[in-house]
Amino acid sequence: MSLQGRPSGAPWRFPTLGPVAPPPNRPARQALTPSVGWGVLHLFLKVGPALDAEAVVEAVKAARAEGDQVVTVAMLGHKADVGVMALGPDLWRLRALQSALRRAGLEATGSYVSLTEVSEYAQGVPEEMKQARLYPTLPPTGKAAFCFYPMSKRRNADHNWYALDYEARKELMLGHGAVGRTFRDRIVQLITGSTGLDDWEWGVTLFGGHPDDLKACVYEMRFDEASAHYAEFGPFWTGMVGEIEDVLASVH
Amino acid sequence: MSLQGRPSGAPWRFPTLGPVAPPPNRPARQALTPSVGWGVLHLFLKVGPALDAEAVVEAVKAARAEGDQVVTVAMLGHKADVGVMALGPDLWRLRALQSALRRAGLEATGSYVSLTEVSEYAQGVPEEMKQARLYPTLPPTGKAAFCFYPMSKRRNADHNWYALDYEARKELMLGHGAVGRTFRDRIVQLITGSTGLDDWEWGVTLFGGHPDDLKACVYEMRFDEASAHYAEFGPFWTGMVGEIEDVLASVH
Amino acid sequence: MSLQGRPSGAPWRFPTLGPVAPPPNRPARQALTPSVGWGVLHLFLKVGPALDAEAVVEAVKAARAEGDQVVTVAMLGHKADVGVMALGPDLWRLRALQSALRRAGLEATGSYVSLTEVSEYAQGVPEEMKQARLYPTLPPTGKAAFCFYPMSKRRNADHNWYALDYEARKELMLGHGAVGRTFRDRIVQLITGSTGLDDWEWGVTLFGGHPDDLKACVYEMRFDEASAHYAEFGPFWTGMVGEIEDVLASVH
Amino acid sequence: MSLQGRPSGAPWRFPTLGPVAPPPNRPARQALTPSVGWGVLHLFLKVGPALDAEAVVEAVKAARAEGDQVVTVAMLGHKADVGVMALGPDLWRLRALQSALRRAGLEATGSYVSLTEVSEYAQGVPEEMKQARLYPTLPPTGKAAFCFYPMSKRRNADHNWYALDYEARKELMLGHGAVGRTFRDRIVQLITGSTGLDDWEWGVTLFGGHPDDLKACVYEMRFDEASAHYAEFGPFWTGMVGEIEDVLASVH
Amino acid sequence: MSLQGRPSGAPWRFPTLGPVAPPPNRPARQALTPSVGWGVLHLFLKVGPALDAEAVVEAVKAARAEGDQVVTVAMLGHKADVGVMALGPDLWRLRALQSALRRAGLEATGSYVSLTEVSEYAQGVPEEMKQARLYPTLPPTGKAAFCFYPMSKRRNADHNWYALDYEARKELMLGHGAVGRTFRDRIVQLITGSTGLDDWEWGVTLFGGHPDDLKACVYEMRFDEASAHYAEFGPFWTGMVGEIEDVLASVH
Repeated sequence: MSLQGRPSGAPWRFPTLGPVAPPPNRPARQALTPSVGWGVLHLFLKVGPALDAEAVVEAVKAARAEGDQVVTVAMLGHKADVGVMALGPDLWRLRALQSALRRAGLEATGSYVSLTEVSEYAQGVPEEMKQARLYPTLPPTGKAAFCFYPMSKRRNADHNWYALDYEARKELMLGHGAVGRTFRDRIVQLITGSTGLDDWEWGVTLFGGHPDDLKACVYEMRFDEASAHYAEFGPFWTGMVGEIEDVLASVH
Repeated sequence: MSLQGRPSGAPWRFPTLGPVAPPPNRPARQALTPSVGWGVLHLFLKVGPALDAEAVVEAVKAARAEGDQVVTVAMLGHKADVGVMALGPDLWRLRALQSALRRAGLEATGSYVSLTEVSEYAQGVPEEMKQARLYPTLPPTGKAAFCFYPMSKRRNADHNWYALDYEARKELMLGHGAVGRTFRDRIVQLITGSTGLDDWEWGVTLFGGHPDDLKACVYEMRFDEASAHYAEFGPFWTGMVGEIEDVLASVH
Repeated sequence: MSLQGRPSGAPWRFPTLGPVAPPPNRPARQALTPSVGWGVLHLFLKVGPALDAEAVVEAVKAARAEGDQVVTVAMLGHKADVGVMALGPDLWRLRALQSALRRAGLEATGSYVSLTEVSEYAQGVPEEMKQARLYPTLPPTGKAAFCFYPMSKRRNADHNWYALDYEARKELMLGHGAVGRTFRDRIVQLITGSTGLDDWEWGVTLFGGHPDDLKACVYEMRFDEASAHYAEFGPFWTGMVGEIEDVLASVH
Repeated sequence: MSLQGRPSGAPWRFPTLGPVAPPPNRPARQALTPSVGWGVLHLFLKVGPALDAEAVVEAVKAARAEGDQVVTVAMLGHKADVGVMALGPDLWRLRALQSALRRAGLEATGSYVSLTEVSEYAQGVPEEMKQARLYPTLPPTGKAAFCFYPMSKRRNADHNWYALDYEARKELMLGHGAVGRTFRDRIVQLITGSTGLDDWEWGVTLFGGHPDDLKACVYEMRFDEASAHYAEFGPFWTGMVGEIEDVLASVH
Repeated sequence: MSLQGRPSGAPWRFPTLGPVAPPPNRPARQALTPSVGWGVLHLFLKVGPALDAEAVVEAVKAARAEGDQVVTVAMLGHKADVGVMALGPDLWRLRALQSALRRAGLEATGSYVSLTEVSEYAQGVPEEMKQARLYPTLPPTGKAAFCFYPMSKRRNADHNWYALDYEARKELMLGHGAVGRTFRDRIVQLITGSTGLDDWEWGVTLFGGHPDDLKACVYEMRFDEASAHYAEFGPFWTGMVGEIEDVLASVH
């Protein structure tokens, strides 16, 4: 089975990667899709002066009705009130969700644009694992503690990831992954690629059963050589995954 | 006694770490709690055009009525007017306080999300000290000078904290702590962990009898090797701890 | 044929580089033109509270009617809703487009000012290729995935591009270009110069058939020595190229 | 005479460091004072849409009536319109001035929180000089050119101020002071400490007879080893000292 | 002739550096003037919601009527709509222009405060050249392409300008100037000093006949050793010099 394909029975309603039928209120145009995997749009939004909670719920439902996955999060702190993570094949459709949320009175104060991917170091993993990375099912159940952060690999004179050869990088990534796997039961992780698309090279989304699972996992991995010497981290966004109605009730 | 438990008689009103009864205006949902310790939310807020001082007071009282601790601070300078530091087991409840303050007309311009913790270097301290770090009682009496700042450990080529082995780090932290203990009478300090949760790795909250106690303590510790070579500091927030009514009267 | 000239038959409607006739609603003034090539203005805009979609369409059409090229993009994420890339000989005319968009209710939140150029390392390429860089025809058909980012060359103690001699730089650029050419079918690239004009030294605009084409191209080139050791990157802006009407329908 | 005391006849109206009588519109609370010296609050403010110039004048007069010193400055450039530097023993009183200015329609866009101090290298200076640093009389007459900037000492691998021993630091500071003293007639300087209180370690306030006195002094000192190798500078704020009425007339 | 004097016949209307008669709407106060040269205020402004174009024109004319020089620029990109560069002896008068522009509906989003100067390396140049730097006549005719950027000299461990001796610095500056002089016909340059006054050490204002003159000049000089190893650059502001009426017509 090619990377573009999908195992039958996977919980994914978008049948092909060809053009998507336009919603009635928009002129026909071609879908813009990655040749493999999905587009991922993280939006972090503040409640504006005229929030229409029903319209927010409608926007989320409409995106899901078209086959996109939408994770909703009540955010902690001044950076944002609501977090929305949307995944789907057509970037125009992700944008339509962003526009609908704006019309509903949520003002985006942060965001991240990325694509699901199978990293170059994981080309040898079983097909099922590849599919799970390209077409994940989110959010995981029982893991309401959420964080997102972008990261890049260093290009300093002393530690330049992009000057290492493939074998050295692969070995570092394997060690990194081994640490991560010790958190397998406590954390569900999705790493999406954004080189050329957003300000950092990868986006990392973590779901944990408890907020200290997130902390323990990221803290532990910071001692791993791939992170200690080669990682640069962007801002961290933290919140609680919930149904959109609960999220709005909590932040409004 | 396990870390999750608490010594009897401790001044802490939240009985268990299980689900919290939802307030009447919000559908039932599960509490999101750290498996040990409390969530900590620092909020720094500006007085908006329509401040409802009574509603602010109500919000603080409501959070305390549910068992959370809330420290209120009149801030100095343009960064914020009001500082609120809230500690409690359920992140949804901390978020409810944030939302209530916003509805009352306070606009968050800064914040910090962290968890109380016993650091890996302090696992051998007496149980009582661990409990005091995980479930502190704030604010301390007679210490109205307040500052908060986040910090991280360096990962430079020359000084990389995360490339040191545990013994070396522990020795540096012990020296660091020894300097800190010389300020035991002048400063009450709470260090909370935020790796994976916010933009820095730790949050430091200091309470002093006089503002120069804060200055002397942080200045002195800057010469300690753990700080001199390995610490990076974020923004500093300074103010005066007071009853919320006094704080509002002062900043309004 | 001189650099200032153009091969006959090229799809370019601006006949000479001399003064442009002022539009009726503006007093006569001299055009401000580069002595070779075009001015390039990237604008990234948010939908303001009083968007006049028709006026936006008019502004784009008016600029094209005067001979400028205008690429319109629906942007993803919080940075902007609409992207506009305008190319033409007269900077006053590019500014007129910016002003018309503002009057129509689009608020610029980002921008980039640059000029088309033939780099010093490409002076030996065939005249036709030079002309294509100085007077490109945009957008390319069938390449709706758009990204823009500015970049500079490093001037660190360890890696200082501007301390290398010409031959060393040329060799690095040739290697860089060789990697880029492997993406010839998937990516159309325009590099414009901005040293002295905007905060970085070059602007890079990429058009791809799929969003992962952008990602693959930029990721692959990051391993090239010219990028790995000598490149610094600014913010990345990503979106979908479309007719202005479709773009507005999507983001509004 | 102890540091807390003051030479008789000094132009300072605050008699003791004990609790201050609360103004009638605020419930009684304890003053928060440094154990030695004064609190210093620099505020940089913009004229808001509803400036009440009389209320601004009242606020300044009220602070002075309570014994605080208030320097007012017309600022140049986009950062701020009005600069206010207030010095006094009680931080609550400095905050009261900030709040009164806000109520009068001035919006703080920048600020700095610090304390007067006698540096560790100046403990041997005559008592009178110590008192002048702890309890200065500002503004100096005939020196209307004003600038303020914060600074810190470097903690780099190559130059780490906090890894130097006391003698080395003292020698560098003496050389630094010697350069500064050559500007004794042209510049009045106040250095206040902010480690632990604001984002940099010191605030530097300069008053000169002419704006080029400020420039010459800072430029000359930049060649001093203590600055050349060990200083990091924050933003610079520049303006003209004047009576608050003149300042408001100038910036309004 | 002293530095304070000026050659007769120079196009400069400000007769002495003594106190300036206050305009009728402002109480009498002393001018604040550099002891040699002029103050320079670069303002970058956005068109606000209630622009009074006539009042803008009046403000510019009033400043010129008092003897100040005012260059007006239509800016490109999101940073600003209008650029104003004002030069004159009295800082209060420069501030009065800033205030008048604000009252007219232009909102300052950027600025730079500096002074004309004869650098320490140019003390041996002919008196006429010194006067041209201290009391320039701007804008030059036929050079409508404008850019401004601030810069500082590096103080890194590897390249520390302020640790070089005078002879080394002078030699570097002479080489730098030699490159600059090859652009004598294409570029008019004014370098003004801002150490101690604004966030960078110098401001560089360039006027070119074509926008690619600006680019070619700054690009070429970046290879000069003084720039390659020792220069740090701030933001770049670019636009088209024009009469204020044309500028307003273009950006409104």
